[in-house]
Amino acid sequence: MESKQILLDHGSGGGATRALIDDVLIKRLANPTLNELGDSAVFDLRHNGRIAFTTDSYVVDPIFFPGGNIGDLAVNGTVNDLAMAGAKPLYISLGLILEEGLMVKDLERVVDSVAAAAQKAGVLVVTGDTKVVPKGKGDKIFINTSGIGILREDVNISAAAARPGDIVICSGNIADHGITIMSCRTGLDIRGDLKSDTQPLNRLVETLLDKCPGAVKSLRDPTRGGLGTVLREIATRSGVIIEISESALPIKNEVASICELLGMDPLFLANEGKCVAIVREADAEKVLQTMKSIPEGQDARVIGRVVNGSPDRVVLKTAVGGSRIIEPPSGEILPRIC
Amino acid sequence: MESKQILLDHGSGGGATRALIDDVLIKRLANPTLNELGDSAVFDLRHNGRIAFTTDSYVVDPIFFPGGNIGDLAVNGTVNDLAMAGAKPLYISLGLILEEGLMVKDLERVVDSVAAAAQKAGVLVVTGDTKVVPKGKGDKIFINTSGIGILREDVNISAAAARPGDIVICSGNIADHGITIMSCRTGLDIRGDLKSDTQPLNRLVETLLDKCPGAVKSLRDPTRGGLGTVLREIATRSGVIIEISESALPIKNEVASICELLGMDPLFLANEGKCVAIVREADAEKVLQTMKSIPEGQDARVIGRVVNGSPDRVVLKTAVGGSRIIEPPSGEILPRIC
Repeated sequence: MESKQILLDHGSGGGATRALIDDVLIKRLANPTLNELGDSAVFDLRHNGRIAFTTDSYVVDPIFFPGGNIGDLAVNGTVNDLAMAGAKPLYISLGLILEEGLMVKDLERVVDSVAAAAQKAGVLVVTGDTKVVPKGKGDKIFINTSGIGILREDVNISAAAARPGDIVICSGNIADHGITIMSCRTGLDIRGDLKSDTQPLNRLVETLLDKCPGAVKSLRDPTRGGLGTVLREIATRSGVIIEISESALPIKNEVASICELLGMDPLFLANEGKCVAIVREADAEKVLQTMKSIPEGQDARVIGRVVNGSPDRVVLKTAVGGSRIIEPPSGEILPRIC
Repeated sequence: MESKQILLDHGSGGGATRALIDDVLIKRLANPTLNELGDSAVFDLRHNGRIAFTTDSYVVDPIFFPGGNIGDLAVNGTVNDLAMAGAKPLYISLGLILEEGLMVKDLERVVDSVAAAAQKAGVLVVTGDTKVVPKGKGDKIFINTSGIGILREDVNISAAAARPGDIVICSGNIADHGITIMSCRTGLDIRGDLKSDTQPLNRLVETLLDKCPGAVKSLRDPTRGGLGTVLREIATRSGVIIEISESALPIKNEVASICELLGMDPLFLANEGKCVAIVREADAEKVLQTMKSIPEGQDARVIGRVVNGSPDRVVLKTAVGGSRIIEPPSGEILPRIC
């Protein structure tokens, strides 16, 4: 493209929009369905059953961070939302809202990441839209990704399906994404391997459904709001108490240290490549070993269990033998985390 | 909701987000699939064939305008993108990016319009997402709607299908939306019935496909970029010349007057409830009468025809007997028109 910056004219729907689409987007995302550039993508789903459909807008600040950027975050987030329903993600859309003045090279870098993440997850970007807003009416780039996936007949996953006796398994270390974004914002000097955990989880979920059919009852990815929020949702929806053990929570040392330094509760910080599964007790060990057998779940751990009682709540068994009901921190957690 | 304004906390993923979802969104959009509030909507598509999938972000300024607001615009726009593929729109998603400080009553008004437009078009809002950005990092409200529709086997509509001899039909008066938004922005005193034409076109398209099977070869809704832009795209994709007649173009007197006053070309101004169809010559009269038989197409007119020749272009036959190749105005047309 000739211009080094995004101009209002790139959102006009005319020649400049077309140049942006051709030179920046199609060049990186080309596939026969997208290339048609119709008002809609049209394709054969070849699936006469249930589908999953999801949408998420990404407004993360900063747009580039250790471990990823808003582009792969947007693809992985939507892929994971589909995977959490037990679906196989197939198609995604890409809606861009660009701020006038955004550097074209930054946009190219983001779209490169969209393309790489889509390829890694095995999904096609089949349709898109680009709008431009005047300087000061947006912030560099916001991305919406919506997605479609298909479900096998035997899959029935629901936040309302947890029952006493079920085991709670977390697929890996928590709070990496939240602490990484917070560290970027506060200007903390990040050392070690602290980075966002953004990654697709569809392969992990597909492997679980293949190798442990019927084992997984509830599945959520603890993004915005963190592990604490999704466990509270499952407890409420299922009408159960969930007990988790503080000492069993998988968390990197450096993340735990920064949480302590900043007074943040890692249970309520965002993850972008982790899931929590509520599984039948009889299958728990097999689910755990299956998760650990692939890289996305190598740090998986049993973190608790579902017990009888009311009212529904999440109880944390502390390292020193006490227990407390977990509650989200009051007030703003952290805006624009994803 | 307790707060009268949107706060950053409404985007945190915690209790305030939940209150916003329950009190403002679910209350107005409730349906069994949406109410599940999972990471994805899961439903049975009951359709083993081609589907259409589309996405659009809406950043229109102002968010309220004569004839509608960003809410019904967002629903109708995505419904129409699906209809233009010949699909029957069924499901849509709703992604909101709210600016801190937005009045909750304004959001409620927008969501009321989303609900009414969805009901009118016969589509369900099955999944959604809400983000909040700090004051000055957005502008009141941006909406992304993505949608899914299903195609009948006998439908084959493509911008590449126009052939010499085909007839060009426009479903109604052009440039209403563009001139309405421009008038709002420039503070022009709007009189008469000047208003946005935002409306769903799926019923019109479905009726055409039912009553005139095989007649419609290309179909587009001339939104951003206007009628001129979509005709140029069809000419390019099909490798044909499209001749349109200036005197045949349907346009309201007040719209024509304001266009003249502001020096705007109505061919390149946005429409949000019109379509242009390229149809087989033998079926043209039937298509025209079918369009005119329903309210959304009552002002339909034959505006031109497809002729042989190269290079592909759109030629306007002027009222005084001349002809000129139509070209989009250079530079910015009008930002944030939709």
